[in-house]
Amino acid sequence: MTSRTLEFWFGYGSTYSYLSVMRIDEAAERNGVRLMWKPFNLTVLMQEKGLPTGPFVPRPEKMEYMWRDLERRAQRRGLPYKKPPRYPVDSQKTVRVGYLAAREGWCSQFSRRVFEMNFVEGRSIGAPGNLEAALSAVGKDAEATIRRAHQSDIEEGLAADTRWAIDHGLFGAPHFVVDGELFWGDDRLEDALEWCISGPRP
Amino acid sequence: MTSRTLEFWFGYGSTYSYLSVMRIDEAAERNGVRLMWKPFNLTVLMQEKGLPTGPFVPRPEKMEYMWRDLERRAQRRGLPYKKPPRYPVDSQKTVRVGYLAAREGWCSQFSRRVFEMNFVEGRSIGAPGNLEAALSAVGKDAEATIRRAHQSDIEEGLAADTRWAIDHGLFGAPHFVVDGELFWGDDRLEDALEWCISGPRP
Repeated sequence: MTSRTLEFWFGYGSTYSYLSVMRIDEAAERNGVRLMWKPFNLTVLMQEKGLPTGPFVPRPEKMEYMWRDLERRAQRRGLPYKKPPRYPVDSQKTVRVGYLAAREGWCSQFSRRVFEMNFVEGRSIGAPGNLEAALSAVGKDAEATIRRAHQSDIEEGLAADTRWAIDHGLFGAPHFVVDGELFWGDDRLEDALEWCISGPRP
Repeated sequence: MTSRTLEFWFGYGSTYSYLSVMRIDEAAERNGVRLMWKPFNLTVLMQEKGLPTGPFVPRPEKMEYMWRDLERRAQRRGLPYKKPPRYPVDSQKTVRVGYLAAREGWCSQFSRRVFEMNFVEGRSIGAPGNLEAALSAVGKDAEATIRRAHQSDIEEGLAADTRWAIDHGLFGAPHFVVDGELFWGDDRLEDALEWCISGPRP
C-alpha cells in the first residue's frame, strides 16, 4: 500500500459524483490506495463564489449535454442510470448526514444508497422521506441519526472542511486530492490513483 | 473503415484543443475512422452566449487548475508542454486560415504547427509574425494565404460552420461530433471513436 491517501471530495448535489461514488471503493482497493471520503457543502462553495447552485442551469445546451454524457458514461461503466426527476436538488440535510457518516466510517454505503435512489430509482435527494429511507437501508435509526447530524460539532466540522476546500482551490465536484494535488472530475480518478502510487512523473 | 465520420470541432483559442490536435490523426487512423477537421469561431460562440472569451478568466482557481491539468495531461501523452506566455489569445486571423486549410486539406499540419508554437515554443497565437511563420513552416506563401483567407467565401463558410455549431448545442472546444452526437473535451475522444465504430451501446 502506498503511503499517499486519496481524498474524495464530493457533493450530494453533484451529478458526476454519482459515477465516482459507485466505483471509487473498488478502484482504491485494486490499487492498494488508502481512501478518505470527504463530502462537503458544495452549495456553500457555489454561493461564496457567486455561482448558480445548479452549475449547469444557466446554460441549457451545456446542461442537456451533461445529462447525455452522464448517461453514456454510466453505460460505459456498466452502471444503471435513469435521469433523475429533479435537478438541482436540495442536499443540505443529506450532506450533514454524509459528513457524520464519514466520521463514523459508513459514508461509502450511505452515499451509494443515496445516489442509487436518485440516479436509478427516481427518488430525489432532498424529497420528503428519502433521506430517512436511505438511512434505514444502511441499518441506521433515521430520526436519531439526522438529529445527531445537526449537532454543532458536526455542523462545525462540515463547515471547516468546506472552508478547506474553498481555500485550497476546489471549484466543483468531484475532486480527488492527493497531497494537495487536485484532480477534478470522475474522468480524472485514474490520474489521481496514479499520482497516489507514483507521484509526479519525472 | 466505418461509415461514420468523426468531426473534430476545435478553436485556436482553446487550450485543451492542443491535446486533441496533436493526437487525433493517429487515433483516427488507428481506428479506421474518417476524420473531418472543423475549426470554428469560438469567440463568436462565446460572445453570442454572453460568456467571457477566455473561458477560465473570471474564475482564477479554475484557471489555475486548468494549467496544471493541461501540463499533467500533456505529460501523460508524452507531449512537450510549456505554459504559453499569453492567455487568452486573439485567434481571429488564425481561425480564418484554419478554415481555409480545412477546405484545402492541410488543416492538420497547419494546426499542429500553430499549437506547437503556442504550447511548446512560447510563440503566442495572434502575436505579430507567428501566423506567417506557421504558414511558411508548412510550405505556404504567408501573405497570399492570409489574403485568401479573408475573402468573402471563406468568411461566410466559417460563419456558417460557427452558426451550425451554436445551433447544434456546442458550447466550447474541443467537441467531437459523430452523426450529430456530441462529445466534449479531449478526454471524450475515445468515447467518440467508439461511437464511430459501434454506435450506441445496446
